[in-house]
Amino acid sequence: MSNFFFDEQALSQRLINYRRELHRYPEAAWCEFFTTSRIAAHLKHLDYQLAFSDQIIRPESIMGRDDKLVQQAQERALQWGADTESLILMNGVTGVGAMLDTGRPGPNIAFRFDIDAVEVAESQDDSHRPYFLGFSSLSSGVTHACGHDAHVAIGLGLAEVLAENRDKLCGKIKLLFQPAEEGCRAGKAIAESGWLDDVDYLVAAHIGMNVPSGTLVCDPQHFLCSSKFDLQFNGKPAHAGIEPNAGRNALAAACTAVSQMLAIPRHRDGMTRVNVGQLMSGEGRNVIPEKALLKGETRGENRELNTYMYQQVEQIAHASAMMHGVDVEIKAQGEAIGLYNDASMVNLLYRLGEQSGFTHVVREKDFGASEDAGYLVDRVQQNGGKAVYCLVGSDLTAGHHNGDFDIDETRMLPAVKLYMNIISQLQAEVSC
Amino acid sequence: MSNFFFDEQALSQRLINYRRELHRYPEAAWCEFFTTSRIAAHLKHLDYQLAFSDQIIRPESIMGRDDKLVQQAQERALQWGADTESLILMNGVTGVGAMLDTGRPGPNIAFRFDIDAVEVAESQDDSHRPYFLGFSSLSSGVTHACGHDAHVAIGLGLAEVLAENRDKLCGKIKLLFQPAEEGCRAGKAIAESGWLDDVDYLVAAHIGMNVPSGTLVCDPQHFLCSSKFDLQFNGKPAHAGIEPNAGRNALAAACTAVSQMLAIPRHRDGMTRVNVGQLMSGEGRNVIPEKALLKGETRGENRELNTYMYQQVEQIAHASAMMHGVDVEIKAQGEAIGLYNDASMVNLLYRLGEQSGFTHVVREKDFGASEDAGYLVDRVQQNGGKAVYCLVGSDLTAGHHNGDFDIDETRMLPAVKLYMNIISQLQAEVSC
Amino acid sequence: MSNFFFDEQALSQRLINYRRELHRYPEAAWCEFFTTSRIAAHLKHLDYQLAFSDQIIRPESIMGRDDKLVQQAQERALQWGADTESLILMNGVTGVGAMLDTGRPGPNIAFRFDIDAVEVAESQDDSHRPYFLGFSSLSSGVTHACGHDAHVAIGLGLAEVLAENRDKLCGKIKLLFQPAEEGCRAGKAIAESGWLDDVDYLVAAHIGMNVPSGTLVCDPQHFLCSSKFDLQFNGKPAHAGIEPNAGRNALAAACTAVSQMLAIPRHRDGMTRVNVGQLMSGEGRNVIPEKALLKGETRGENRELNTYMYQQVEQIAHASAMMHGVDVEIKAQGEAIGLYNDASMVNLLYRLGEQSGFTHVVREKDFGASEDAGYLVDRVQQNGGKAVYCLVGSDLTAGHHNGDFDIDETRMLPAVKLYMNIISQLQAEVSC
Amino acid sequence: MSNFFFDEQALSQRLINYRRELHRYPEAAWCEFFTTSRIAAHLKHLDYQLAFSDQIIRPESIMGRDDKLVQQAQERALQWGADTESLILMNGVTGVGAMLDTGRPGPNIAFRFDIDAVEVAESQDDSHRPYFLGFSSLSSGVTHACGHDAHVAIGLGLAEVLAENRDKLCGKIKLLFQPAEEGCRAGKAIAESGWLDDVDYLVAAHIGMNVPSGTLVCDPQHFLCSSKFDLQFNGKPAHAGIEPNAGRNALAAACTAVSQMLAIPRHRDGMTRVNVGQLMSGEGRNVIPEKALLKGETRGENRELNTYMYQQVEQIAHASAMMHGVDVEIKAQGEAIGLYNDASMVNLLYRLGEQSGFTHVVREKDFGASEDAGYLVDRVQQNGGKAVYCLVGSDLTAGHHNGDFDIDETRMLPAVKLYMNIISQLQAEVSC
Repeated sequence: MSNFFFDEQALSQRLINYRRELHRYPEAAWCEFFTTSRIAAHLKHLDYQLAFSDQIIRPESIMGRDDKLVQQAQERALQWGADTESLILMNGVTGVGAMLDTGRPGPNIAFRFDIDAVEVAESQDDSHRPYFLGFSSLSSGVTHACGHDAHVAIGLGLAEVLAENRDKLCGKIKLLFQPAEEGCRAGKAIAESGWLDDVDYLVAAHIGMNVPSGTLVCDPQHFLCSSKFDLQFNGKPAHAGIEPNAGRNALAAACTAVSQMLAIPRHRDGMTRVNVGQLMSGEGRNVIPEKALLKGETRGENRELNTYMYQQVEQIAHASAMMHGVDVEIKAQGEAIGLYNDASMVNLLYRLGEQSGFTHVVREKDFGASEDAGYLVDRVQQNGGKAVYCLVGSDLTAGHHNGDFDIDETRMLPAVKLYMNIISQLQAEVSC
Repeated sequence: MSNFFFDEQALSQRLINYRRELHRYPEAAWCEFFTTSRIAAHLKHLDYQLAFSDQIIRPESIMGRDDKLVQQAQERALQWGADTESLILMNGVTGVGAMLDTGRPGPNIAFRFDIDAVEVAESQDDSHRPYFLGFSSLSSGVTHACGHDAHVAIGLGLAEVLAENRDKLCGKIKLLFQPAEEGCRAGKAIAESGWLDDVDYLVAAHIGMNVPSGTLVCDPQHFLCSSKFDLQFNGKPAHAGIEPNAGRNALAAACTAVSQMLAIPRHRDGMTRVNVGQLMSGEGRNVIPEKALLKGETRGENRELNTYMYQQVEQIAHASAMMHGVDVEIKAQGEAIGLYNDASMVNLLYRLGEQSGFTHVVREKDFGASEDAGYLVDRVQQNGGKAVYCLVGSDLTAGHHNGDFDIDETRMLPAVKLYMNIISQLQAEVSC
Repeated sequence: MSNFFFDEQALSQRLINYRRELHRYPEAAWCEFFTTSRIAAHLKHLDYQLAFSDQIIRPESIMGRDDKLVQQAQERALQWGADTESLILMNGVTGVGAMLDTGRPGPNIAFRFDIDAVEVAESQDDSHRPYFLGFSSLSSGVTHACGHDAHVAIGLGLAEVLAENRDKLCGKIKLLFQPAEEGCRAGKAIAESGWLDDVDYLVAAHIGMNVPSGTLVCDPQHFLCSSKFDLQFNGKPAHAGIEPNAGRNALAAACTAVSQMLAIPRHRDGMTRVNVGQLMSGEGRNVIPEKALLKGETRGENRELNTYMYQQVEQIAHASAMMHGVDVEIKAQGEAIGLYNDASMVNLLYRLGEQSGFTHVVREKDFGASEDAGYLVDRVQQNGGKAVYCLVGSDLTAGHHNGDFDIDETRMLPAVKLYMNIISQLQAEVSC
Repeated sequence: MSNFFFDEQALSQRLINYRRELHRYPEAAWCEFFTTSRIAAHLKHLDYQLAFSDQIIRPESIMGRDDKLVQQAQERALQWGADTESLILMNGVTGVGAMLDTGRPGPNIAFRFDIDAVEVAESQDDSHRPYFLGFSSLSSGVTHACGHDAHVAIGLGLAEVLAENRDKLCGKIKLLFQPAEEGCRAGKAIAESGWLDDVDYLVAAHIGMNVPSGTLVCDPQHFLCSSKFDLQFNGKPAHAGIEPNAGRNALAAACTAVSQMLAIPRHRDGMTRVNVGQLMSGEGRNVIPEKALLKGETRGENRELNTYMYQQVEQIAHASAMMHGVDVEIKAQGEAIGLYNDASMVNLLYRLGEQSGFTHVVREKDFGASEDAGYLVDRVQQNGGKAVYCLVGSDLTAGHHNGDFDIDETRMLPAVKLYMNIISQLQAEVSC
């Protein structure tokens, strides 16, 4: 048990309050202006040093961000009452990093909380608690159906407890409120900003994920590696009847690319996947299509396998363009690179789970999806640090990304307690 | 010269007035509710017997009509002041047939005027006369850039002169104000309604078409045969990562179809064409696409060649669906079947051109496009009648379907005079 | 240790003699006329009841048999001195089943020995023992490079020992000398003949397979499921310049099939494979190809996965034919359905291995290839019997199907001893 | 009528004799060693200056020549009694150019005679005159079924008459006995050798071609432009089951290329064609194919259209290779570039036809095939000379390239007379 003091009952209630407020203002990836402004205001009040925009996110590495949607989100954030100062500091890029520098020597420990909602319409059924209790989404077609509202609440709660116990801490504590986790669009840019480069330990978690209330999974397995991409083919239109030879058929190129991508050879070493989920092309029925936009993804059981698939996609994209005399732009839209916990950190969690309030503590469980945290974990490990990503159980009313999704709100408190225990233990190891 | 009396100067001015009014209220194919109501009101006033909806258009053969756009067009027509009675008689289907029955034995002669505008934004440049003079389109993104406004004006002018000279006429005169000529979407349905089945002679014309002011082309050549179609592929979605084998990939089927359609073998007997102008498919990046909609067309130098192409498309559509285990619906969206004038009618026009006010009368010129009148001409010919389709020259300010398109308004009068002379001559032949 | 008597030294030498004689007369799948005739003559002499042709092989289920090669093989067998009576009984279909019916109640036990050689040229290097000692292949381009000559020798040796010990036996013993194991072309037809339907226990083995001399593998794992197939597309030729539309392009259909087969969706449940290894099509450069022959295969980690792949191939073959207006014949050329040993039999072998002369007895090892015995094992199991397929270790001079392949001939004796021990044990269980 | 003297009756009989002898020794393209040696021997005897090998054929531009077949042809020519000296001079390349240099100033006039046979089996029916009279092909599967034996006979006859009338001639006369006309494989190489670069007038003809006996066609129309090509894809084999990702699939690349070539867009300006007539690929069923060879051709109504098609083929070949990570070699195998006569030469023939013994002289007739002479005509015209290619009528017993093909042998004489008249006329014009 940590030696930090806080009123668990009161904290649990505040966590619920935070989560419910955030739940009302869901914002999709790269649009979290209001959310960021509220987090920033709160942390500034607690005396954290804040970092925004290119301090925490390398602009060149941003993926899957739509300027038009960002513009609309900023306007809406203002209408909802976002504080202007934060908006200016964000400079169009959401998310905030907060640092508590104790001034005392000690380990640098970071926690990551993802903050974005998903583009799903929230249930308006009385059986859906957020609707029944009146804290459901104010933004049509967007809702916190993945539990990131709870993640933010946990982060705010942790920030409070740390601030209250500032005198008992050493080293630096960093709290990363990450935008655009969905689609794995921000992790790479955050890693490459360098903001985590002085971190010795990184901890992240996800609530739910088919883990029941009370259970802690210390070392989830099989994080999917995946690349999301758009292919934009640009050709030349021509009247299909009058001069069929004069066009450069972007649709023909796109169709060639689709057929060939589906035929990328299977790989000896394991599971691979490829999909083209969308194709939009053409203007008029009698015009050879000038443009074609194709949205796809690759997956692999590990990083090498996904890289194999993505390199094949690149080759096919260029060959399809060449085949039909058109140009192609390949735009990365998101990437997950897998995630491998450090054994020492897994062991630490395994030891601390029960005292933090979990009734079942297990080591492994299949994850089977992708996590943007992989980039952050990898960066910390590259720099000699240790990292862990765990699953905090919560009974759910419906699956993730479903409009009826709701969590067991009482499961946020154990997460905060676990984090405090981790800090306590890591600091004890270096006897600061 | 015909023995009919009318004041040419006054008529010419009225033609211009009619045309300018119609120009302000452009309506695209199947949306010509206001246009039809104005024509109907005028002809009713002149004592013509009017026919609407399934009297002139066989519902089952309608192609390329969008219920939603029709609904919007009706509402706008009401706002513009369309008369309610006509709207009721139309019953959702635009166009009107008018008959002047002299009660005296004689040939039945029909004239066809197409009434629809095109989905092109009209120029707002001072050099564009309709804009400068203030009679430009009141409907954003739609304008009379093909000259059908002039066709309607000619039809109304002809109706007036005929009404004034009713006592000198015999047989029946039918004036067909046809909707949805663009895309060849109504001709088949009109032909199959049977409204033209008692017609001995059918005459139609187009203004402009790269024929200069003053010239009459009596026998344009090489009308294109074409089929417009939509292919709707319906598969089954599945998560592309979790169970790639469980989907039925509608996009894969559509891409196969596109590639294969572009590879339909060339034909020994002459020019063929195929194009897929649009493809829309898919929902999410990681979902195997459930649906794909593809818009295409075939063309042929003659009817047999186009039929060859279209049958290949059907075969490919079914085979592509079978290949990927999906369903496909093939929806005809328009069809042009070529057009072949009767030599006797061509000769008649050739003789009458000069006395009708044309300074150059030529026999042949390449048409090189499709004309929905082909169905009407074919129907009349099948029933033993004679038909002719001619080109009335007019200098243009820009090509057809261009926002800067404008005609030489003085060229409408010779068309009316030609039609009156045709009637005079055909009636003289049978000495009624 | 079995209670059967035989002189091990003498037997081992005879095994070697048999093997060397057979090695000189290698015959590929469905061509084993000389081999069969020699086996039959030997077993007849030992008083076994023999079964040939459709008694042991269902004609309709034969796969991958070439009439022309069979004809040539029969002629060569006569030249080599095959006995005419056996050739008549074979009736064109190789292989022989032999039964020793003790007339006493007891279990029916079957052993399977595959007899075909492979189409590989044998090494003519002095370091290759068969060449150096003068017993190398008399048939150019064919050799026993898979060890089936040793399998036959083991079968003949077992037959002798059983005949010598006839009085100590009960039940029936069946010895199946199977043709066409390579390419998995006969197993299905043998199973469906019903000849094994009264069998309580089936035992089969393979020598070598990367298992060293002295080792017995009792339960090899991961037998591949695979289907071999030919697709013959039949179209209609036409002069490509003069009437491109008149052909039915078999090559276009084949190419479509190839591209689409390579794009069969991956399967959730595990490893799948597809390959087109050969395509031959066309006559003249300027003729639309009338015929195209394509040779391919599917594989799956289990039977369901291979079935999934093969059904997709069938669907694609038919759709590709439809696409290009050609016909297609799908000819099964071989099939392997996996192989799952019965645990009780595995345990029996595990117990008996050491006393049979194996120095290492292990349970599992990856097999990673296909085995035609799968059909036989499955048939016996379907009828309530038990079956086992094991690996008899032998150091090799080169890999299977390599022209330098040679075995350790001393490893045949332990196989015979194992078989005798199995019989002894199974008969003891029922105390016959 | 020319002022040259010769005995027509005797000449006609010699032409027949020559033709019949040549008919017995047919040799396919690039294999005409015996034929060339006989021509050379004859012309040398008549005192012509002879040119062989790279004097008349640029080696780098040779197309569609198979070293192995050439080797076999040389051996057979020796067996048939070809004279060794000619064989040495040929240096492996067939054909011979002969010059008669009068030493007097005057125009340089060339005549072209193609000498190769076709790979067709000659009829052995008594109704087939060559068989019945005993002068049918001595080479199985090869015969003069296109009439080039008659062309050579005409050339030899002309050479004799010229030699006899040497004193009445001025300028230079060049007789080109061209190999490998079939498949258009030599014309380019001959043109580029420069041997015709000093020629003022070039004349060539074809016998038959659906023109009846007695008719001369002075200006055949619509010579096809065509390119013959082989694509050799070279990839990397791999076991399709064990490491499907390790191969570079040459067959997949070839199939992609076939599908895409068939989909080259039609061209506004007229008729185009493409065909892949053969595809051979692969070794084993379970091996990813390492090599694929594809034989194809393009055609166009004119040179630009064929060039358009061929450039698309090149683009597709490279893109298909890139798509599948393999290499591709594009090997030109033949090319025809169209042929356009000079009007003045056409007029000359039109005037001289009747006096040369033709009963009908017509200007135009569709040719509809390709002619290797196009390259020669083009070269002469590029250098400021005039050229003409005409059709010498002959009733046929069967179509060209048919085993029953035979000509009306009496139609050779008018060709020689026409040529003499042309020389007479052209020399008269310059009054030499």
